[in-house]
Amino acid sequence: MGSHFHGNVHKELVLVSGRSHPQLAADIAKKLRISLLETSIYDFANGEIYVHFKESLRGCDVFVLESHTEPMNKWVMEQLIMVDALKRASAKSITVVCPFLGYSRQDKKHNGREPISARLIFDLFAAAGADRIMSIDLHSAQIQGFFDGPVDHLYAMPILTNYIKRRVDINDVVVVSPDAGRIRVAENWAERFGGCPLAFIHKTRDIFRPNVVKVGRVVGDVIGKDCVITDDLIDTGGTIAGAVKVLYETGAKSVIVAATHGILSAPARERLLECNVTEVVVTNTLPISQEKQFENLTVLSVAPLLAKAIEAVFEAGSVTSLIDDTNL
Amino acid sequence: MGSHFHGNVHKELVLVSGRSHPQLAADIAKKLRISLLETSIYDFANGEIYVHFKESLRGCDVFVLESHTEPMNKWVMEQLIMVDALKRASAKSITVVCPFLGYSRQDKKHNGREPISARLIFDLFAAAGADRIMSIDLHSAQIQGFFDGPVDHLYAMPILTNYIKRRVDINDVVVVSPDAGRIRVAENWAERFGGCPLAFIHKTRDIFRPNVVKVGRVVGDVIGKDCVITDDLIDTGGTIAGAVKVLYETGAKSVIVAATHGILSAPARERLLECNVTEVVVTNTLPISQEKQFENLTVLSVAPLLAKAIEAVFEAGSVTSLIDDTNL
Amino acid sequence: MGSHFHGNVHKELVLVSGRSHPQLAADIAKKLRISLLETSIYDFANGEIYVHFKESLRGCDVFVLESHTEPMNKWVMEQLIMVDALKRASAKSITVVCPFLGYSRQDKKHNGREPISARLIFDLFAAAGADRIMSIDLHSAQIQGFFDGPVDHLYAMPILTNYIKRRVDINDVVVVSPDAGRIRVAENWAERFGGCPLAFIHKTRDIFRPNVVKVGRVVGDVIGKDCVITDDLIDTGGTIAGAVKVLYETGAKSVIVAATHGILSAPARERLLECNVTEVVVTNTLPISQEKQFENLTVLSVAPLLAKAIEAVFEAGSVTSLIDDTNL
Amino acid sequence: MGSHFHGNVHKELVLVSGRSHPQLAADIAKKLRISLLETSIYDFANGEIYVHFKESLRGCDVFVLESHTEPMNKWVMEQLIMVDALKRASAKSITVVCPFLGYSRQDKKHNGREPISARLIFDLFAAAGADRIMSIDLHSAQIQGFFDGPVDHLYAMPILTNYIKRRVDINDVVVVSPDAGRIRVAENWAERFGGCPLAFIHKTRDIFRPNVVKVGRVVGDVIGKDCVITDDLIDTGGTIAGAVKVLYETGAKSVIVAATHGILSAPARERLLECNVTEVVVTNTLPISQEKQFENLTVLSVAPLLAKAIEAVFEAGSVTSLIDDTNL
Amino acid sequence: MGSHFHGNVHKELVLVSGRSHPQLAADIAKKLRISLLETSIYDFANGEIYVHFKESLRGCDVFVLESHTEPMNKWVMEQLIMVDALKRASAKSITVVCPFLGYSRQDKKHNGREPISARLIFDLFAAAGADRIMSIDLHSAQIQGFFDGPVDHLYAMPILTNYIKRRVDINDVVVVSPDAGRIRVAENWAERFGGCPLAFIHKTRDIFRPNVVKVGRVVGDVIGKDCVITDDLIDTGGTIAGAVKVLYETGAKSVIVAATHGILSAPARERLLECNVTEVVVTNTLPISQEKQFENLTVLSVAPLLAKAIEAVFEAGSVTSLIDDTNL
Amino acid sequence: MGSHFHGNVHKELVLVSGRSHPQLAADIAKKLRISLLETSIYDFANGEIYVHFKESLRGCDVFVLESHTEPMNKWVMEQLIMVDALKRASAKSITVVCPFLGYSRQDKKHNGREPISARLIFDLFAAAGADRIMSIDLHSAQIQGFFDGPVDHLYAMPILTNYIKRRVDINDVVVVSPDAGRIRVAENWAERFGGCPLAFIHKTRDIFRPNVVKVGRVVGDVIGKDCVITDDLIDTGGTIAGAVKVLYETGAKSVIVAATHGILSAPARERLLECNVTEVVVTNTLPISQEKQFENLTVLSVAPLLAKAIEAVFEAGSVTSLIDDTNL
Repeated sequence: MGSHFHGNVHKELVLVSGRSHPQLAADIAKKLRISLLETSIYDFANGEIYVHFKESLRGCDVFVLESHTEPMNKWVMEQLIMVDALKRASAKSITVVCPFLGYSRQDKKHNGREPISARLIFDLFAAAGADRIMSIDLHSAQIQGFFDGPVDHLYAMPILTNYIKRRVDINDVVVVSPDAGRIRVAENWAERFGGCPLAFIHKTRDIFRPNVVKVGRVVGDVIGKDCVITDDLIDTGGTIAGAVKVLYETGAKSVIVAATHGILSAPARERLLECNVTEVVVTNTLPISQEKQFENLTVLSVAPLLAKAIEAVFEAGSVTSLIDDTNL
Repeated sequence: MGSHFHGNVHKELVLVSGRSHPQLAADIAKKLRISLLETSIYDFANGEIYVHFKESLRGCDVFVLESHTEPMNKWVMEQLIMVDALKRASAKSITVVCPFLGYSRQDKKHNGREPISARLIFDLFAAAGADRIMSIDLHSAQIQGFFDGPVDHLYAMPILTNYIKRRVDINDVVVVSPDAGRIRVAENWAERFGGCPLAFIHKTRDIFRPNVVKVGRVVGDVIGKDCVITDDLIDTGGTIAGAVKVLYETGAKSVIVAATHGILSAPARERLLECNVTEVVVTNTLPISQEKQFENLTVLSVAPLLAKAIEAVFEAGSVTSLIDDTNL
Repeated sequence: MGSHFHGNVHKELVLVSGRSHPQLAADIAKKLRISLLETSIYDFANGEIYVHFKESLRGCDVFVLESHTEPMNKWVMEQLIMVDALKRASAKSITVVCPFLGYSRQDKKHNGREPISARLIFDLFAAAGADRIMSIDLHSAQIQGFFDGPVDHLYAMPILTNYIKRRVDINDVVVVSPDAGRIRVAENWAERFGGCPLAFIHKTRDIFRPNVVKVGRVVGDVIGKDCVITDDLIDTGGTIAGAVKVLYETGAKSVIVAATHGILSAPARERLLECNVTEVVVTNTLPISQEKQFENLTVLSVAPLLAKAIEAVFEAGSVTSLIDDTNL
Repeated sequence: MGSHFHGNVHKELVLVSGRSHPQLAADIAKKLRISLLETSIYDFANGEIYVHFKESLRGCDVFVLESHTEPMNKWVMEQLIMVDALKRASAKSITVVCPFLGYSRQDKKHNGREPISARLIFDLFAAAGADRIMSIDLHSAQIQGFFDGPVDHLYAMPILTNYIKRRVDINDVVVVSPDAGRIRVAENWAERFGGCPLAFIHKTRDIFRPNVVKVGRVVGDVIGKDCVITDDLIDTGGTIAGAVKVLYETGAKSVIVAATHGILSAPARERLLECNVTEVVVTNTLPISQEKQFENLTVLSVAPLLAKAIEAVFEAGSVTSLIDDTNL
Repeated sequence: MGSHFHGNVHKELVLVSGRSHPQLAADIAKKLRISLLETSIYDFANGEIYVHFKESLRGCDVFVLESHTEPMNKWVMEQLIMVDALKRASAKSITVVCPFLGYSRQDKKHNGREPISARLIFDLFAAAGADRIMSIDLHSAQIQGFFDGPVDHLYAMPILTNYIKRRVDINDVVVVSPDAGRIRVAENWAERFGGCPLAFIHKTRDIFRPNVVKVGRVVGDVIGKDCVITDDLIDTGGTIAGAVKVLYETGAKSVIVAATHGILSAPARERLLECNVTEVVVTNTLPISQEKQFENLTVLSVAPLLAKAIEAVFEAGSVTSLIDDTNL
Repeated sequence: MGSHFHGNVHKELVLVSGRSHPQLAADIAKKLRISLLETSIYDFANGEIYVHFKESLRGCDVFVLESHTEPMNKWVMEQLIMVDALKRASAKSITVVCPFLGYSRQDKKHNGREPISARLIFDLFAAAGADRIMSIDLHSAQIQGFFDGPVDHLYAMPILTNYIKRRVDINDVVVVSPDAGRIRVAENWAERFGGCPLAFIHKTRDIFRPNVVKVGRVVGDVIGKDCVITDDLIDTGGTIAGAVKVLYETGAKSVIVAATHGILSAPARERLLECNVTEVVVTNTLPISQEKQFENLTVLSVAPLLAKAIEAVFEAGSVTSLIDDTNL
């Protein structure tokens, strides 16, 4: 009788989800050909969230999905509480999956005595017990450095560009950045369109003569072109709708707006409807309620991307390679 | 010219507050004879909270007030964001003041795969940068052990008993525990009333014959007495209203209900009105909105208690001594 | 020649034990069908403990057993030293197994300037390198929240009740709580006995008339009954022996005392002998020396429970399910 | 005789410096009217650094200066070693002062399997014992979020613009961004010049027709103007010298180059001499060796800025206010 | 009414002590002209230690004394529990004072799968909340590196040499190292005696012909000399008594033994009595019970040294300077 | 469709190397029969190091080799940067392999206000993300205690003694310690030579008459012997060359010098050539450049030792057993 008891090594992937985006959770689970782990989540009368996982998680690699839509702080807390429960239930590893990461725009201090809330969010997940973060199109690349561990940063661009390529005349398309700060992203898009031309919009004033106020001016040639405006997110839609108008005024033939995260806070729907945009294309990183939807809004699914990334993490494959996968 | 530059040692107390309970913040500040630090807090369109402190905090002992009322998760996050901003703004020490601590009822696992959310809340505050916690009447005394540092645990009992003593005939009063689990707290109350008798209520079944279902039974003598039911909080009021009814059925002359935390989630107001309670006495650890109020509800202020405790912490005095201060 | 060297994945369970409870260690090892890992432990002349594991532990899941009996501080330190050695010897995971957790009664502050020693114990194990804690019948459920990781909290009740069921007339039994604070545990016991009646003892004074001193009074009907007093531990036996006497005075036919942890500090043996208790049933979470034993003392083994829990942790099975296993 | 021994509270500022930039250290000390703390630092034969502080530091607020010039890794290690020694010598607080922070350009991952070295640097300082970081013009504002504590981020712009205002005809000046990514910084500069016009340079290709290669094109009107190119640093000078040439080719009257950090790695000197730049203005955040200097190079001192910031931190004054101080 | 509340800055030193060495605690307090803080410490029946500080400690610099004598593990735990209580009672800083540090001989691994218990002890104190360690004559200087913070390492040599100088003929004295490993310490002693000669003892075998067993041989000239054997501690006295015998056999006139820590585990007393040592000189870093004492044993006090060091730490003076203070 | 997705468990070893010692890296890889992982490492113009791993590392056990040769601080930083990149690339475990650990001589404080740089180095590796350290012949055994985790401490003695045994007449050999502090190491060597005699050298003065200055004296019999001087490292060679001379002056027949780490800083080569040493034997823990080499210098490879240790760690075998493996 020896002193070492040998056992078989198991490895199991489990997907759990909060209540913020059940459709996306279901879609990812389906792609992975598993069911979501049965979970009981509800609110107490005073708003405290209660979580209970109904099946054993011991030794599993768990992926915890929550999309930081409104009410955002509730879903962040719900995800933190799930992580705490997973840690205490002996999960082998815990990956926080946030298709849209809340507070990612607060990634620096503009003034003294401000928080850096994007860093805080990662600190909170680390404190709760998360081992890894997975997200799509973070507001700035530096945010990855806010976590002391691996961050799987996925890109939705291939999903968006593969769709849009089929909607425009590739020989007549112009990629448009809604402001000077995102020209580099637009360059990547233009490459995906075979090296098409670019343009960008100056809002609020002429940067070349800053003391003269002047709203929205197109830099670059868009006359008679199919324009594609790219941004990481559409919140209230003010900037984007303004850009669409200026493009039409300048002579654009059509304008498609493409963004990864369709926050679409009111009055985004009204603004986008008014500006006669040809089509608005977003992904389903965030749930898009009935009231936010409208005829020209197209929503593409990130479920295949997330399912592939989750499987790659689980199987120790390369997530980096997903960036350029045009077949998602 | 020496190598050491000498300076004067300053020590400054600053009180900042989130948006959950502005009246209590104002009351505490007034007691401390300072104004609240000017702060800009608002929501972005998608619910992200933005915080900016307008005055320097460098080197100050800062107390950050937030009451965990509904929507609870929002206020917890707001307080965490304030702590992050204070840490980055070089506060000397950060004390998180939660008159009512959210999630304090989730202080243990009843089943496998549950969180211990009360521990999580303290872990989150520690991760954000809090040095110390101040709270009133935590759901269990063990919660203090969830923080790796000092916790100032204050008691509202003197505030409640000092008031109630003047409302009852001290010779005819009985302290009533709403269930068997809180008899020890009731004993402390009885001592404050000069050693008056106790009683307690059995809900749901007779503990002495558990297989026979029987709802609510009074143990102890309450016939013709002024009863005072004590509890740490009133949430939806079901247990309390049931206890009041049973007491009247058993022959009580009057029934006062006293609790530290008036959560008063719907339908607490209706239940308490229906049961003919003589008076409901709570403190203002939580804000009590207009719709929650009713004629027989008395709200006592914890502002003097918190102001004294904050000053004691700042001046390195004894907070322990506040427990028995009957003059608050 | 590739850049990745592939290897076989092993998984091995090892059980190591300090010197506090060698019999229990041997029993658990036997149940697991392994031998204890060969270990050299002795004291230096001035009381320093020396530990050396004689076989390789690299990559193993190690369970470190120590029962916190007297001299308790020595065994706590011995277990900490073993954990340090395991960490430095590249154990894959370290589970601290404390059938009885020392200092678990010090789980809260009763006064200012006291420690929370139960939290400290967990902090020390975490600092030494423990990944997980396993224990039986902690003094309060909140103690699980003192560890920032998984705690396997096992229950000895099925072991005790399975035995006692065979010793009493199930139709004539009453479960007795030795004080008001443990009525809820007694309720669980009563359920295991098919919903039998309960009773409890008031020590020191009548809670319904607290200003009149009165020692020990039975609440509930025990005349002519087989009484079973339940508690988590028996230390010096004063409370328990007093309860036995009161039960007999009130008319009980027989009295069995059941507790998980048989600390049995002097003069427990004398007190229990004097009070004419029918039988005292404890488990062997703690070693029970020759001098502590007496004729009516029955000691049940937790070795099967611990062996099953250890195997479940190792095989990533569910420990929760062990709670209700009546076949242990 | 009481149990508390009372003492006087002292507060002392000490400035220590490594060997990377002795002149700047001396200048700051002079501004603070103290001498540098006497320190022994030298290399062992194999390159190990030895540090010994010759005077007591116990209880002092210590500022540790090191400029991350070449050999950069040596000075980073030297500063880390100094921090370790200060921690062990009981300094009350340790502020790491890096006028130029090494590795700040590596603030994000461009590909998988890259480091985020700017985060690493802050992690290393935290591990060694630093409480706070002070630096000037970090490569991106997000870097502040890489430290879990206060970062005093100073701006050299007022120093540079105050000087340049006196060198140009304010009515004829154009601020030029050397690439699209820094247009926002250029906007701030333009405001300091009373709202003057802007321009920017396209390197490598025409962003509006990306598939046509075209080197350097000026966007904006610079004909007959006094151009001021702004950047955070000048490393090998390739981009800057190219921008100067294009500006002249496009019709600029004169070109001043302004940057905070004069790294000036070879062949920066040659490139800047060849391109006929009117003047190159940098600060002394980095030492500028004799071989790097040339006639048209002006070096402005950040010693007054750093001395004021150090004193503000020590006196708990506001560092934020220094940003707009035009009188430095 | 401003937003900042100003207060006076206090600074208070408090000395608390466990039960291991009350006399030394009293002596240090007397030197500091304070009384020990009133503290309640006792054992529960099963050996758990209970601690309660009777006076406020909030904001104080607290020094916690415990000497790691037998039963060592108990006193280590007692000191850890005191530190936990101090942390929760809001002490400003906590300095662990261990005149003799337990487990300091276990400062390295001799074999695989051993602990490094000296490191563990420091990790435990850090986990409990200690900010600083103070000790005397650690077994090796490297132990200071086991703590991530300041360690005040004091030397008892001046106390011992000042005494012995008056007991020997300074012109005829030889300092003797009991083995080859401590020759460097002996060199320091010889310097304190004005550069007197040295000798050392070879135990167990002749190092120059290791294959020939030979017990105890004096290297150096001791014939007709007053010998002074120096060591850091005397545990069971075997090595020392053997050295004394060999010195006499070789012709020594007298032999004084000097060591900082008088552990004197049995049978040290008997061995030292038998060997006819002239005098044994130790300090009171450890309590020396009645049974350990004998006629020729001299015990010098470290209370003045510790009192000076504590005061220096509190007043932020230099502790380093105490090393050479010959007037203690 | 179940909720758990099962996967196969892989285990892969990867070896990556910095630029300090490419030959050793290649030799180890060859022994392991793998190729080094393809890696891109270069310096920016200002000395910042850039690292990029070209192949996936996700889930692998990675060993990161760097030898701390000159410029030492650069290589330490390079290794830290590699560890950061590995952590962010999801390596399963990261083992830092330092055949020679830089700063290991700075393992204690000789004076106040010095660093303990060996501890700092380990703290930095831990902060970057290292799980384990592997090194050869650390300057003191206590250094292992500076890391809070496993340290694989390998010994090169068998490699050196196996070689030297074939170069000397085993019946006429004497092992010589270059100073009194290393006699114990010399004893181990003598055992490997079948219990041969020892000697040691006194530098600077006669320890038996310290007030009389006297340079270099041999203690022990070396006349007509083959002497083998052992040390852990040869830095500038002053001590060693002096020892060789004294041995010859005293009558030694031949003198071989053996040391693990051949730092050989100038003027080591000149000194060793001048002193007529028979042979100098070192290992290749450090690269030995062309200019450092000379005719009588023999360099033995530690690649087999490191390869075996790496494989043992990966396969969870025993590293301890390698210490006595004479067949490496």
